[in-house]
Amino acid sequence: MRIIDARVVVSSPGRNYVTLIVETEDGLTGIGDATLNGRELAVASYLRDHVCPLLIGRDARRIEDTWQCLYRGAYWRRGPVTMTAVAAVDVALWDIKGKAADMPVYQLLGGAARDGVMLYTHASGETLADLHEDFQAHLDQGFKAIRVQSAIPGLEKTYGIPAPGGEIYEPASGSRPQEDRWDTAPYLDFAPQMVASIREEFGYGTHLLHDVHHRLSPIEAARLGKALEPHRMFWIEDPTPAEDQSAFRTIRQHTTTPLAVGEVFNSIWDCQQLITERLIDYIRASVSHAGGITHLRRIFALADLYGVRSGSHGAGDLSPASFAAALHVDMSIPNFGVQEYMGHRPPADEVFSVSYSISEGHAHPGDAPGIGVTFDEEAAARHPYDPKYLPINRRLDGTVHDW
Amino acid sequence: MRIIDARVVVSSPGRNYVTLIVETEDGLTGIGDATLNGRELAVASYLRDHVCPLLIGRDARRIEDTWQCLYRGAYWRRGPVTMTAVAAVDVALWDIKGKAADMPVYQLLGGAARDGVMLYTHASGETLADLHEDFQAHLDQGFKAIRVQSAIPGLEKTYGIPAPGGEIYEPASGSRPQEDRWDTAPYLDFAPQMVASIREEFGYGTHLLHDVHHRLSPIEAARLGKALEPHRMFWIEDPTPAEDQSAFRTIRQHTTTPLAVGEVFNSIWDCQQLITERLIDYIRASVSHAGGITHLRRIFALADLYGVRSGSHGAGDLSPASFAAALHVDMSIPNFGVQEYMGHRPPADEVFSVSYSISEGHAHPGDAPGIGVTFDEEAAARHPYDPKYLPINRRLDGTVHDW
Amino acid sequence: MRIIDARVVVSSPGRNYVTLIVETEDGLTGIGDATLNGRELAVASYLRDHVCPLLIGRDARRIEDTWQCLYRGAYWRRGPVTMTAVAAVDVALWDIKGKAADMPVYQLLGGAARDGVMLYTHASGETLADLHEDFQAHLDQGFKAIRVQSAIPGLEKTYGIPAPGGEIYEPASGSRPQEDRWDTAPYLDFAPQMVASIREEFGYGTHLLHDVHHRLSPIEAARLGKALEPHRMFWIEDPTPAEDQSAFRTIRQHTTTPLAVGEVFNSIWDCQQLITERLIDYIRASVSHAGGITHLRRIFALADLYGVRSGSHGAGDLSPASFAAALHVDMSIPNFGVQEYMGHRPPADEVFSVSYSISEGHAHPGDAPGIGVTFDEEAAARHPYDPKYLPINRRLDGTVHDW
Amino acid sequence: MRIIDARVVVSSPGRNYVTLIVETEDGLTGIGDATLNGRELAVASYLRDHVCPLLIGRDARRIEDTWQCLYRGAYWRRGPVTMTAVAAVDVALWDIKGKAADMPVYQLLGGAARDGVMLYTHASGETLADLHEDFQAHLDQGFKAIRVQSAIPGLEKTYGIPAPGGEIYEPASGSRPQEDRWDTAPYLDFAPQMVASIREEFGYGTHLLHDVHHRLSPIEAARLGKALEPHRMFWIEDPTPAEDQSAFRTIRQHTTTPLAVGEVFNSIWDCQQLITERLIDYIRASVSHAGGITHLRRIFALADLYGVRSGSHGAGDLSPASFAAALHVDMSIPNFGVQEYMGHRPPADEVFSVSYSISEGHAHPGDAPGIGVTFDEEAAARHPYDPKYLPINRRLDGTVHDW
Repeated sequence: MRIIDARVVVSSPGRNYVTLIVETEDGLTGIGDATLNGRELAVASYLRDHVCPLLIGRDARRIEDTWQCLYRGAYWRRGPVTMTAVAAVDVALWDIKGKAADMPVYQLLGGAARDGVMLYTHASGETLADLHEDFQAHLDQGFKAIRVQSAIPGLEKTYGIPAPGGEIYEPASGSRPQEDRWDTAPYLDFAPQMVASIREEFGYGTHLLHDVHHRLSPIEAARLGKALEPHRMFWIEDPTPAEDQSAFRTIRQHTTTPLAVGEVFNSIWDCQQLITERLIDYIRASVSHAGGITHLRRIFALADLYGVRSGSHGAGDLSPASFAAALHVDMSIPNFGVQEYMGHRPPADEVFSVSYSISEGHAHPGDAPGIGVTFDEEAAARHPYDPKYLPINRRLDGTVHDW
Repeated sequence: MRIIDARVVVSSPGRNYVTLIVETEDGLTGIGDATLNGRELAVASYLRDHVCPLLIGRDARRIEDTWQCLYRGAYWRRGPVTMTAVAAVDVALWDIKGKAADMPVYQLLGGAARDGVMLYTHASGETLADLHEDFQAHLDQGFKAIRVQSAIPGLEKTYGIPAPGGEIYEPASGSRPQEDRWDTAPYLDFAPQMVASIREEFGYGTHLLHDVHHRLSPIEAARLGKALEPHRMFWIEDPTPAEDQSAFRTIRQHTTTPLAVGEVFNSIWDCQQLITERLIDYIRASVSHAGGITHLRRIFALADLYGVRSGSHGAGDLSPASFAAALHVDMSIPNFGVQEYMGHRPPADEVFSVSYSISEGHAHPGDAPGIGVTFDEEAAARHPYDPKYLPINRRLDGTVHDW
Repeated sequence: MRIIDARVVVSSPGRNYVTLIVETEDGLTGIGDATLNGRELAVASYLRDHVCPLLIGRDARRIEDTWQCLYRGAYWRRGPVTMTAVAAVDVALWDIKGKAADMPVYQLLGGAARDGVMLYTHASGETLADLHEDFQAHLDQGFKAIRVQSAIPGLEKTYGIPAPGGEIYEPASGSRPQEDRWDTAPYLDFAPQMVASIREEFGYGTHLLHDVHHRLSPIEAARLGKALEPHRMFWIEDPTPAEDQSAFRTIRQHTTTPLAVGEVFNSIWDCQQLITERLIDYIRASVSHAGGITHLRRIFALADLYGVRSGSHGAGDLSPASFAAALHVDMSIPNFGVQEYMGHRPPADEVFSVSYSISEGHAHPGDAPGIGVTFDEEAAARHPYDPKYLPINRRLDGTVHDW
Repeated sequence: MRIIDARVVVSSPGRNYVTLIVETEDGLTGIGDATLNGRELAVASYLRDHVCPLLIGRDARRIEDTWQCLYRGAYWRRGPVTMTAVAAVDVALWDIKGKAADMPVYQLLGGAARDGVMLYTHASGETLADLHEDFQAHLDQGFKAIRVQSAIPGLEKTYGIPAPGGEIYEPASGSRPQEDRWDTAPYLDFAPQMVASIREEFGYGTHLLHDVHHRLSPIEAARLGKALEPHRMFWIEDPTPAEDQSAFRTIRQHTTTPLAVGEVFNSIWDCQQLITERLIDYIRASVSHAGGITHLRRIFALADLYGVRSGSHGAGDLSPASFAAALHVDMSIPNFGVQEYMGHRPPADEVFSVSYSISEGHAHPGDAPGIGVTFDEEAAARHPYDPKYLPINRRLDGTVHDW
């Protein structure tokens, strides 16, 4: 089952996506998502210029061997560009393996460990009234778990709040990064009020999540966690910058509010301490940024041993191919927690045809062989790459802050 | 893919084996080894009386769900009887999954991560001269790694030394456990001489292993490890009783001789400390005693994160179905170390037909779908169960010692 | 004092029990409970097929030697099936030893260290009103320590709540495991209200216990512990799955609510970390699942060294022989805490005649020689084995959860 | 001091180099090395497509702010591609800053803390005789510290041994990665002999280094460390794969041979545990792979706090711009240890003109303003990019091993 072609398509059907396509001599095609929001072309180059030539002639069935060759063989390991490229290859090979077996990938991973995958969606608003309205709208769509964000009074712009008009939120924009301003004090005062207002209005029947987006110091995060305890959060996410694993010790010492982190993680080394010291409750590593199905399963297996559940990143900056791959993993692991879901802007469905389905706040990957996503290269060509940047965040005095 | 039958066969083609056979509505058959040497019927009862009825009607594809139901659903978890029963079901379901995919199981586990699986074999002798002769015989057969054991001068009987006549060593015997006598002092004096004699005669071109078989205290094991350092061992195995994980700290503190343990382990909890504190170098958990492919892969994934390699138990008390399943795991994991191989007494091949092959000290699982072993129930019926016991070991004063 | 017979009786006088009967040449008879709820026949086979033949001819007085032979001589150690079988032999030999000495067993264990053994009983209800009524009923019976459980609003079924009609609660049932559904959020919201309602109604004069039954993650358990602090619990039990000892570090860090765990433990290795790191306050290991009187005393001795008290499992799935043996241990150790007591359904007393007595919430083992329980084999024969399964628990999405 | 241009040149004057050129409105030009051996174009794309557009218009004097914008603003942090790109910008800005101040960069970093920078060079040979000859040649050139490598008898190819003909060693080659075969046992037997032969021949007057190149398990590395103790090594380098920081605990426990690691590190997070637990003696992070002068100084400052000295990577895969930048850092920090030096193949000096000088085994960055290197774009254009791959390493059984 030799690989005869491997090519990369960069397109922008509503948002920029990098897609790897791998073909074998016996006519099987696998795809993998290689999107790294705001740094797309670096991954595309990593694949096109350095990895694709290596794939030609390889046995597509040797997924582990290929993973090891790409990981160890690069010499320079880890990091977002490298591991996103490796992930795309890995998912494409699992896609091919599933097609060769005539099975959806989750069957190869041990079969369904649940009926469906609980999703969490995003509700947000410029005001609490807007947030409540959006929250109700998501409840009406059947979601059981909702992330709540709201504009902070006194701050000009707040992470996670879409521009008016109702498009799916996309923070990347323009030919220059947008520069936001941040002030911790009003946020720390306001966030518990926001959550309280939701609980008061909607009760405790829904899982509530909130994304701090790396903005706090450890002791500030500890304070927020304590302040939110009466509201029985499902989690708070990314309370502090994610590369500082031991910072979570300080947070953990002070609060029983569950903690989630990891959408920026690229390997098991990025979360080994967080998991083995039980500093978090949910690990948000994603299939496309954390080395693919092969590696992500190892992260989740480690997490399971330490009572940590999965809660994979699933923002719109991951293509439908990524989301599908995530669902196959989510279906099969014992310690699934929740899966983020933002959906994709309409043109995406011209390019990606998917077998997964969503109903009552849960997703199922479907039973098409492989990951269950087909990629239409001609349609993709109609949506050329549209370079964008994620924002820069600065404190009021102009200091660069974590965005 | 509903399961319509699950039955247990206890037979003794050269040695006692318990075999689970699972059949699905679409005509697929999977087998799993449920042998627990000397306690065979307890596992057979566990399966036949308590587990098989639960399997009927289940979807054979839901391997993880079945594993969790059997593990968590029993309430009383872990331990050799329980986990051997769970393992047999798990392997049978992977066998079926492979057949459904028309693939050997190692392909479902990520494909070949190596060309073949390095085996280690056993050389032994009543005298050093006998040991040398046996060692040479194994070298002539192409083995690259050889475990050396020799009778201890002054002790009536020594573990691992077969009765004269050249049959494959089998310590279980008779209607009562044989009672051995043990004395640590002559063993500690003699073992380094034995190894030295091999290195003097045969040089450093072969991997040398030695099994202490749980007989030493931690500080005695540390002394043995130091004494063996000049001989560059591949490992010493089971230096102290295996349930005492932190005992290995004492050994580790004193010697760089690599350490292996785990043939008696039944779950990841039995070795979590050993692995995460890096107290060992090889983990010897086996597919049939450690919860099957599903669970063993998690043990090996944890081990990989901590620089520990696999070295699975593969004595003759595991049936060819077990050995085949082990080879599929061995082929596919990144951190394979070595696989024990003792072979099976001739009548076994009347009952088990295998696709695996052995050449130049390496094994390959073959490319038959599933685990690649078929079980002939009629032939098995010609070799009825022949109850035997493993030995009891006593010190010279009559104290029960670890055998 | 040679053993001349050892036989196993599996019967169901109200609930399934496995009973080992050992007879000596001088006419003494000892009994031991070998019941493992839902896996009874595997233990029966372990004893009947593999252990009983070994007992014949042994000196019944050599309890320690027999224990070591069964533990070390099996080679495959630990686990529920093995250790329950070993425990049954051990208790039967202590029973014989007591009869040989014409003393109740507690005298052989050092004599009475207290006047009687404080029991805790179970109060439960479909509603808080029902729970209050049941609580009052147990107060009226003189109990000083009461475990409270109540149906969770919004969940169809809740652990620990008997079917209407007032029979002693027995979760095992039918020819298939009952499948329960679990949702953590409503439980976490409700449990503190339940306990608060008891304290409000009945004050602080009674020891309050609550069984979480392995359902929470560590951080959820930490939250529950904090929420219950104002209610001065005697303990919360099994907050998280018991095999994960270090999970208790997270709970311990956040709350002073005392913690109990261990009904599923089979050996001292299952709780060594819990005890030596002082992560718990009560160790719930039971005489029949944790290797008998010989081994349980060692667990309790270790516990005493670290300020941990005993609180043995005593559900109805342990036969009166087990309960009696537990009382002898409870009477004699310095660090006794409390003993669970559920009683046995009426037909049990046709089969088991007991010397122990209960009064004012305390039990006394009585002064009959041995453990003080006689087993009527003829009566047992009138109650044949009635196979049942413990439930499977699933989360709302179908994921297998700890029951 | 606005930036008006930022461009990337990929050329191959003897070896592939990626060079970033930044120009300011006031006519100053800075350069930075962005070479990532074998993955050059991915970094080039990262810079050209995503970073250079951001630089235009920025104030070149705001080095810290630019560093933070690139590091935090990318959102996806760390890793070799990202941090090499960030490093190139950082060095180019320090180069500009120096030119603006009319000072060599080391003056801006605090001035000379020593007279010169001790270098270590590489001696190697196919045989011990060859190695001795090469060692003598380096002694004759005045080097005070020499890394020794030699072909391993029995292995076809060994890391670090140049092809006959005397060119500077360059492991990257061809349009496919070369596949090497590795066997640990002969290496472990041979390496101490190699070092011993040097000490016997040349005595103890020279600092001896040896690079294990990530090939050993922790316990194997511990053994090597012990075996080398009589030879008073300056260090052994990269004994185990570098991402596994806690692996060094095992090595450290057994040997006083100094340890060095870090040429593959990209950020302070990659070595935080190694340094704060004092598991190493030298940190080999390099200016161009570890985020530039700004970030590397922070790594070295942390190291100083824990008694760890610098020992930066300086292989030929870093351009003269990198080497010059390293020398400025080396001159200025208090805890400099040693600097690797391999030199560059002759065509490099057509493209890079340098102010640094080497004499008596020491280097000095020179006193030209900035980093003291000029880049000739026209000359570079005569040496077009020549894609190459670093080797893949496999064990004898075909398993991918660390190269």
